[in-house]
Amino acid sequence: MDEIITLDYGSGGKKTASLIDKLIVPAFCNPALSALGDGAVLAGAARLVFSTDSFVVNPLFFPGGDIGKLSVCGTVNDIAMCGGDPKYLSLALIIEEGVPMNVLSLVIASIKAAAEAAGVVIVTGDTKVVERGKADGIYINTSGVGFLKYPGLAPEMIQDGDAVLISGTIGDHGAAVMLARNGISDGEITSDCAPLNTLVDALFESGAAVRILRDPTRGGVATTLNEFIEGADRGIELEETALPIRADVQAACDILGFDPLYCANEGKLIAIVSGETAQAALSALRKHPLGGNAAVIGRVSGRYPGRVVMNTAFGGGRVLQKLAGAQLPRIC
Amino acid sequence: MDEIITLDYGSGGKKTASLIDKLIVPAFCNPALSALGDGAVLAGAARLVFSTDSFVVNPLFFPGGDIGKLSVCGTVNDIAMCGGDPKYLSLALIIEEGVPMNVLSLVIASIKAAAEAAGVVIVTGDTKVVERGKADGIYINTSGVGFLKYPGLAPEMIQDGDAVLISGTIGDHGAAVMLARNGISDGEITSDCAPLNTLVDALFESGAAVRILRDPTRGGVATTLNEFIEGADRGIELEETALPIRADVQAACDILGFDPLYCANEGKLIAIVSGETAQAALSALRKHPLGGNAAVIGRVSGRYPGRVVMNTAFGGGRVLQKLAGAQLPRIC
Repeated sequence: MDEIITLDYGSGGKKTASLIDKLIVPAFCNPALSALGDGAVLAGAARLVFSTDSFVVNPLFFPGGDIGKLSVCGTVNDIAMCGGDPKYLSLALIIEEGVPMNVLSLVIASIKAAAEAAGVVIVTGDTKVVERGKADGIYINTSGVGFLKYPGLAPEMIQDGDAVLISGTIGDHGAAVMLARNGISDGEITSDCAPLNTLVDALFESGAAVRILRDPTRGGVATTLNEFIEGADRGIELEETALPIRADVQAACDILGFDPLYCANEGKLIAIVSGETAQAALSALRKHPLGGNAAVIGRVSGRYPGRVVMNTAFGGGRVLQKLAGAQLPRIC
Repeated sequence: MDEIITLDYGSGGKKTASLIDKLIVPAFCNPALSALGDGAVLAGAARLVFSTDSFVVNPLFFPGGDIGKLSVCGTVNDIAMCGGDPKYLSLALIIEEGVPMNVLSLVIASIKAAAEAAGVVIVTGDTKVVERGKADGIYINTSGVGFLKYPGLAPEMIQDGDAVLISGTIGDHGAAVMLARNGISDGEITSDCAPLNTLVDALFESGAAVRILRDPTRGGVATTLNEFIEGADRGIELEETALPIRADVQAACDILGFDPLYCANEGKLIAIVSGETAQAALSALRKHPLGGNAAVIGRVSGRYPGRVVMNTAFGGGRVLQKLAGAQLPRIC
């Protein structure tokens, strides 16, 4: 690790992982934390799922969402990805002195609407104010508690022949926020920010044999897939031609110098399911309002152990590593 | 409310209350949140207690503690004050670019030690990094989950004739932090930052009829007592001569222009118990390592409905209101 914290440590990629693996997990070693899922599934009769996320997105408002909506969806989705049914949220605000009250009101209204849409209740909170220049508008932490509904999701469940699905287009959130931040948003590209709990229900109702779920936020699809098969004796082959990427998102990423595969998504899930149930899973996702552009984008095989390799449109193979630097700081 | 957020809105006093009452609670109206306790006691079979707190203390290190220890004790205590047995903590870091890695390591080590001391496990977390100048070192959010151990604590349980107890000296944390911030700490005044869950156990084991518990953090003893009896047809009479305040803390507060009754405490609890069980409660607190200076500081009566009045050493009566401005910003 470096001697000082750089923005790279917040990227959700390699540096973030090194900080967590070397400094944080060793300090607090326990089975729930070591699993490094989006949340913790707690042992015991109550079968609780517990997750936390801080939101520092810049700008606070962007096409398709704002920090309030994001802060509800982010934690709801983390719980849903653990197989939990999200129920209760906490809401902790760190507000910079000088924030207009009507900005705060808009954010609160957005949180209210998102919580209602996701079917969760905000039951406890905290408000801190820091001096001008000691934050950047509003930072929000939400933590969530739910009850385990779909047990057994884990990287160890992944098998050769499994299919890799994504529930829709890739990179929309990251592109929307970066365009808004640079003041070049045309309003066409909008964040996909949405609560995924009912989409998870639809997936399981299809009878799909789901091995693992994850919402590819910071670090994007490429980083999430790497986390699934890191150190495993199997790997993931992606098909570039199967990736659902909007042409305008691809163009925006090209202009900004980003790769959509490393861009954050806030309303998409990646599911690895058995090959036999892939079609049932796909059609269930597509029938849901949030899954219209779902696709099977790859498969699990022993061909590239521990690696994610994309078969390109030109017939080549490109190794996709975890995000290395801070491609997109403060995207969530 | 004002048109912009000022530091007063983070004071823990009147402005904070107005923000919460007018903007936040109406948006998320539900019984658990409306109780406005230190945490939420959730209905249902699991009898969960859930709480959240963000920590923005400045400086990060001060005599008797640091932001890491504070962030564990603060949430542990919020759960304990709700009658909960704290079990699981989340840990979310917002780190400013440029923070030295060894500073972060010290904070993590402190969190580890505090979690072990409090008997809680950190099961999930999040790490964000923001650009230089967009935070102030490290901000921490912890949320906590516990199980309800002592049900029925509520302001409505308070009765005429009840005794008001505090578990030790008043204002130590606020004074220690303000001295450290002003670079005039002599190291003699230290924060009282400590986990109070075993002190709560000792109190209940004494057989005391406990009506309500609260740790008087932001806003201090005076604000906490006001929260207990706001709108009630009874009030609280404090005895100035009974207040345990260290002479050096009083002197420091005089120099800094603060009142210890409005200074934050981070390792003290206020308990309102029945008059009959006050002595048993007091001796139980005093026998505990964290309660050596416990005292009965007042009583509940119908004399001043909805008010907290201090009988002064000179025989007068001083009305203690909630903290009005930002006496001590970023004290926790």
